Amino acid sequence: MIVELVTIGNELLTGHTIDTNSAWMAERLNLSGIQVSRITSVSDSRKSILGILKETEARADIVILTGGLGPTSDDITKPALCEFFNTHLVFNKEVFNHIENLLYNKRCKLNEHNIKQAEVPESAIILHNDEGTAAGLWFEKNKKIFISLPGVPFEMKGLITKKVIPALKKAFSFPSIHTRMVITQGSYEAHLAEELKDFESSLPSNISLAYLPSPGIIRLRLTARGTDAKKLADEIEMQILKIREIIPEYVAGFDEDTLETVIGDLLTERRQTLSAAESCTGGTIASMITAVPGSSSYFKGGIVAYSNEIKKDQLAIEPSLIDKYGAVSKPVVEDMAINCRLLFNTGYSIAVSGIAGPSGGTDKKPVGTVWIAVSCQASTVSSEFRFGDNRERNIKRASVTALNMLRKMILSNDG
Amino acid sequence: MIVELVTIGNELLTGHTIDTNSAWMAERLNLSGIQVSRITSVSDSRKSILGILKETEARADIVILTGGLGPTSDDITKPALCEFFNTHLVFNKEVFNHIENLLYNKRCKLNEHNIKQAEVPESAIILHNDEGTAAGLWFEKNKKIFISLPGVPFEMKGLITKKVIPALKKAFSFPSIHTRMVITQGSYEAHLAEELKDFESSLPSNISLAYLPSPGIIRLRLTARGTDAKKLADEIEMQILKIREIIPEYVAGFDEDTLETVIGDLLTERRQTLSAAESCTGGTIASMITAVPGSSSYFKGGIVAYSNEIKKDQLAIEPSLIDKYGAVSKPVVEDMAINCRLLFNTGYSIAVSGIAGPSGGTDKKPVGTVWIAVSCQASTVSSEFRFGDNRERNIKRASVTALNMLRKMILSNDG
Repeated sequence: MIVELVTIGNELLTGHTIDTNSAWMAERLNLSGIQVSRITSVSDSRKSILGILKETEARADIVILTGGLGPTSDDITKPALCEFFNTHLVFNKEVFNHIENLLYNKRCKLNEHNIKQAEVPESAIILHNDEGTAAGLWFEKNKKIFISLPGVPFEMKGLITKKVIPALKKAFSFPSIHTRMVITQGSYEAHLAEELKDFESSLPSNISLAYLPSPGIIRLRLTARGTDAKKLADEIEMQILKIREIIPEYVAGFDEDTLETVIGDLLTERRQTLSAAESCTGGTIASMITAVPGSSSYFKGGIVAYSNEIKKDQLAIEPSLIDKYGAVSKPVVEDMAINCRLLFNTGYSIAVSGIAGPSGGTDKKPVGTVWIAVSCQASTVSSEFRFGDNRERNIKRASVTALNMLRKMILSNDG
Repeated sequence: MIVELVTIGNELLTGHTIDTNSAWMAERLNLSGIQVSRITSVSDSRKSILGILKETEARADIVILTGGLGPTSDDITKPALCEFFNTHLVFNKEVFNHIENLLYNKRCKLNEHNIKQAEVPESAIILHNDEGTAAGLWFEKNKKIFISLPGVPFEMKGLITKKVIPALKKAFSFPSIHTRMVITQGSYEAHLAEELKDFESSLPSNISLAYLPSPGIIRLRLTARGTDAKKLADEIEMQILKIREIIPEYVAGFDEDTLETVIGDLLTERRQTLSAAESCTGGTIASMITAVPGSSSYFKGGIVAYSNEIKKDQLAIEPSLIDKYGAVSKPVVEDMAINCRLLFNTGYSIAVSGIAGPSGGTDKKPVGTVWIAVSCQASTVSSEFRFGDNRERNIKRASVTALNMLRKMILSNDG
């Protein structure tokens, strides 16, 4: 069964929009055992759309297209689909009623762009879109299935989850794929590869390992293929145990885990609270923590102490400490953590002070120098890091490193 | 001149990684007049790589591939390239010396994975990679150019900017494309389309308009095609003036502008300072502002007052106000803004208090209800918003809306 994804839109080819839809769809389809073999992005033109429809018809069994169903006039997917499937647009009362309702609830008025969205290809099966005004379309041609979805991410997501995957699973039986992810923090790709060399070469032939690096985090993906889902899950589980034995100090989580969800779970289980005092990460740690639903039960808040004045006034850092050691130093970052914990009355705290760049570096403290501290009543731990010369990556690396230091502190407090 | 991009990696087809490389490359190439006509993602297998090389050879003049040149063993692009171009891997002393140097500077030790990276296809021209250990490769076959780059984003970026684009511009002459972006905030796609309907239908045939929506922001992209770069720039400039006349209240910036860079420029020009008191946005506003290099000259810091206790203790909000009106209310958010501005001693401040969801909503204040205030010595302005039911989008929309309210306040203070 060959499955391909096609995303339509000039904005993808000019780079004004990143194609996040394909990755999301691919992940969901994979989790349902539906493997994607290719992703193609083409332009918003009749010729490109007809071209890719013809190509994928020759190669694939199932083609899922997104984009080009919106209300504005740069959208021409529907007419191209009609031409390819030799059908024409008809007004659909049910779709129209849905659009009318949706706009009424959003207190928007119906305009001719919205009315045009109620016109759908006659031969298509309509996939009702709860989230928006553009209906999903399901075509069949020579035993091949073509599904066209709107490109707006949350509309596409609703349709994939509620309509497309259930219908595909009903129509076909897919082989089993089992994937698990090991989240590592604190190492780099070539080093992990060296550590895991023997492990990797001893993997059974139906299991593969891949390294997925991002700033501060490398995810290890294990994929098993076969027919017996239960057996695949057990096989992967056994391999994960081996990884945990080989590199215990780097394993920070699994699967969908992020450091912020892992910490959220640890704090929730222990009924503990957290605060953060951030200088160079500028609120990134707080925003990562609060991106997690329910984080208000353990995260009380934080101070972004971007200037030295705020470090003194709001975090009660002794001016003499900053004068003597500089704001990016062990004594200052440790006091930031301790004072933040006391001010916010939390069980744990994180503090970061560093030079994100591009300016502000010196010979002794080049751009990328970051001090991180984590603190609880029993102890305060700090470390110095040299992350590199890129501002964005330095902020991200400092943030995940700080969260991982906190994770280790919480676990070490369990005794 | 047909240009295609190919990204290689199973992680793209399983959705574990979003293909941000293609968008970045497409944008840079476009700005150099090099239009991309298709983007394809294929798996890390010999068959897929050879397949797409054959297909693109038939269709395109220039093919840029990324991915599969890393040090770990899931990478098989190089052998596939050798097979397609009928060449073989040879040890390259120059590449090896570079790898050795790079690892020495990073205090990492050389291992066999790194040594393998010094082996390059004999017939390829080497594109020296300043940022990492995998060299870029340039092949020519039947007057067609194939360029293979590492998938690590910052390595790919260095190679595209410093090596690939200069070499392509030297080898070919590309037609002129001129693109400009108008950044709007505060409206939605169908409404803007209605307002700009007559404008759009009166555009000359060589200029096109596209709507690029993201949470809270809709970017309008104008693209002009032709031969005379200067003339295209003037034509687009004139159309932008028209847009500014039709929807002045929504235009918040241009081109690469983000609300955080626009505000940074406004504050810098006026030698003003800013602080932020965030509840439901949880540090996102501070992290957006501090993502801008140089933001330390105008952003002093902020408080993430996630719990009511912190709103009282750290922002001196009267407990009786919270009891009477709730934390998500006009009196509380206005006091958050005023107190933050005074505490941090800044010219301006932003405050946000809302219900991001998924829980915490009530009949009167459903999920998505957000109060935003901006404050300066002369005045404090606040508004209530209903953003929707998705946590991530609510945080993003509240953040950009708050930044735009600040932008308007700064401009209105100019008199």
